[in-house]
Amino acid sequence: MAEKMTLIMFSGDMDKALAAFNLAIGAASIGMEVSMFFTFWGLNVIKKNEGAIKSKGIMRKMLNFMNRGGAKRLGLSRFHMFGMGKWMMGKLMKETRSPSPQELMTIAHQAGVKFIACTNSMATMGIGKDAFIPEVDTYGGVATYLADAKDGRINLFI
Amino acid sequence: MAEKMTLIMFSGDMDKALAAFNLAIGAASIGMEVSMFFTFWGLNVIKKNEGAIKSKGIMRKMLNFMNRGGAKRLGLSRFHMFGMGKWMMGKLMKETRSPSPQELMTIAHQAGVKFIACTNSMATMGIGKDAFIPEVDTYGGVATYLADAKDGRINLFI
Amino acid sequence: MAEKMTLIMFSGDMDKALAAFNLAIGAASIGMEVSMFFTFWGLNVIKKNEGAIKSKGIMRKMLNFMNRGGAKRLGLSRFHMFGMGKWMMGKLMKETRSPSPQELMTIAHQAGVKFIACTNSMATMGIGKDAFIPEVDTYGGVATYLADAKDGRINLFI
Repeated sequence: MAEKMTLIMFSGDMDKALAAFNLAIGAASIGMEVSMFFTFWGLNVIKKNEGAIKSKGIMRKMLNFMNRGGAKRLGLSRFHMFGMGKWMMGKLMKETRSPSPQELMTIAHQAGVKFIACTNSMATMGIGKDAFIPEVDTYGGVATYLADAKDGRINLFI
Repeated sequence: MAEKMTLIMFSGDMDKALAAFNLAIGAASIGMEVSMFFTFWGLNVIKKNEGAIKSKGIMRKMLNFMNRGGAKRLGLSRFHMFGMGKWMMGKLMKETRSPSPQELMTIAHQAGVKFIACTNSMATMGIGKDAFIPEVDTYGGVATYLADAKDGRINLFI
Repeated sequence: MAEKMTLIMFSGDMDKALAAFNLAIGAASIGMEVSMFFTFWGLNVIKKNEGAIKSKGIMRKMLNFMNRGGAKRLGLSRFHMFGMGKWMMGKLMKETRSPSPQELMTIAHQAGVKFIACTNSMATMGIGKDAFIPEVDTYGGVATYLADAKDGRINLFI
């Protein structure tokens, strides 16, 4: 049986998403079975890039507007500076031909990395399955995560 | 022997505390032995809600005022917006009947999750045992954590 | 064979560096084999304290100026308050005779903790090996990390 790695993607920061996808792809490429569990702000990473998410109530509308998400829209955990840090990082990554979070996400998915969206966070934030990219394989809660992580050789919270 | 999970609760953010308690409760409910090690800002999570902590020296007094803590007072890691983000999140959680950090903490404790307060951080910040809720089971340092984590199937830093 | 611990040091925050070095030293002192993998902002922790890093292009120059790093210059993840939080924490730590991040780094290295700098982050940020302290043992990417972490009893992302 393949060795397992699990990553809880709690953060919605671009830099942490880059780190997570690089770890996932590296592990998949040496034959590990990888699952990424997206929860809280991490759900932003796997949201569709197009437009706003429909949700009920003014507060959910606000929360979901602020968290429009999509891998294209993620900010940095540091030096965000109203988008300038992100723009700089984007330019540097292009120059050094580093793949973007979106490209890494596609590569990870093609390498067999499993994407799981946290249903508890979805319920609290009032977002449905239609908000997410089709690469999401599973919708599940803590029990789904624990079932994977219990046999994980490497389990990280990012 | 029961399988173990350990969580280092370094952060004092409400959202991360929610994630941690949900993981702890989930693991306890499938029979795992869970210990949560509260350190640095994470100490705020297990502080009593009532009033200021007595401490010596103006700087410690300031630091402890800023970190009054108690599970009721935790802020979000993102979108805190001078408390508005927290208020919104609180309302959404009430609407969806999601338990608060305080309620989750009680549930976790009743489910047998062990709460450990980091004595090193307590010494640096100048706070004594009387600052904490009675649910704290153990006071210990890195060695206490490592003894648990070495046999942990899942060890996370939150 | 000694039991292993691996720490990914993603963050460049002083408080998280303190936590990481304390964990590393604790584990080394009970005979564990510890490796710390410094990536992204974490690279700041192992940069030399002296002056600016030479790099090409205005944006890399700016990025590297903002990330001058060196264990002396790290800020707090919370309450940084334009350096005041850091100053207060520094004073409190001196009063309680807690070692500084720099001192802990030296102790960790002497205790046999392995320091690995992430070559991917270095390439994106345009920094060479000359930017780092001599205590760095290895330069490597994700594969280097995974080789250690696969056999790790405790693997944390900080």
